[in-house]
Amino acid sequence: MNQLKSLIRTIPDFPKPGIEFRDITTLLQDPWGFKRAIDEFVSHYRYSPIDKVVAIESRGFVIGGALAHHLSCGLVMARKKGKLPWMVERQEYQLEYGTDVIEIHKDAIVKDDRCLVVDDLLATGGTCEAACKLVERLQGIVVGCAFVIELPDLGGRARLAKYDQHSLVSFSGH
Amino acid sequence: MNQLKSLIRTIPDFPKPGIEFRDITTLLQDPWGFKRAIDEFVSHYRYSPIDKVVAIESRGFVIGGALAHHLSCGLVMARKKGKLPWMVERQEYQLEYGTDVIEIHKDAIVKDDRCLVVDDLLATGGTCEAACKLVERLQGIVVGCAFVIELPDLGGRARLAKYDQHSLVSFSGH
Repeated sequence: MNQLKSLIRTIPDFPKPGIEFRDITTLLQDPWGFKRAIDEFVSHYRYSPIDKVVAIESRGFVIGGALAHHLSCGLVMARKKGKLPWMVERQEYQLEYGTDVIEIHKDAIVKDDRCLVVDDLLATGGTCEAACKLVERLQGIVVGCAFVIELPDLGGRARLAKYDQHSLVSFSGH
Repeated sequence: MNQLKSLIRTIPDFPKPGIEFRDITTLLQDPWGFKRAIDEFVSHYRYSPIDKVVAIESRGFVIGGALAHHLSCGLVMARKKGKLPWMVERQEYQLEYGTDVIEIHKDAIVKDDRCLVVDDLLATGGTCEAACKLVERLQGIVVGCAFVIELPDLGGRARLAKYDQHSLVSFSGH
């Protein structure tokens, strides 16, 4: 996975001083890198029956779209507040300062749908945990949480401990 | 394509009275529908050499991600203002009232990259035209513009006349 890691650009002091932002766009725009990342997920989940990939806005849409197509699943968008046009389930979650909200359509998941939740990055795990709660409120089953990048020092893995988790590369030290 | 069309939900009076919103989420969450839509694009573009899929935020990310992976291309995100973390090229475009901006990273496209611009919907074509201009400013070549839905009465096809265009389903009357 070191080859994938080398395709991720680090941008110092973004979005604020002291933060090293891990920029996945350089991996996505590399044909080999993007294919390799998706193929890694596919080989990890190939033998897990999955009905729906739940992709978290908005970089998660790129990963989730490719993965859902390859696994022949449905794709469900977990979106920020007010973006979905139909009836939604809504889950609030904690940010460093204040709260945010994530939504999915009420008909996007049906009882016992086996769902894989996908995002580009696992940091504190707040958004992903909220997406998992939405899946469960609609009586779906979270079969796993998949990320390209994990920042292990931010505690996301512990927060999502009840779910199977899989990430491709890891950056420590923040 | 009537089967695909029947998977698209129409929501009256969204986002404002008199507009019939074509909701693609019902197509995406249907495993057959999503796979069929992507496979239609793949078969259309299979013999066009493509280096980069340029996906327009944010529903375009889902389509573009799946398509780029299947065609073994790089994926470039065309994002709204201020979302990309590195140096960007920026293009303003006209809305019904006011203007908006779309951006891509300066290093996302290199000279002579053959680019397919992808979005979920072709309406007036303003956003897509702006994305095409960004591709050309970075000395890439627009090999085509691909949409799931086309609203032919809004004039997008004429606006993008200099580019090859392909859409899967069409809704007239607006």
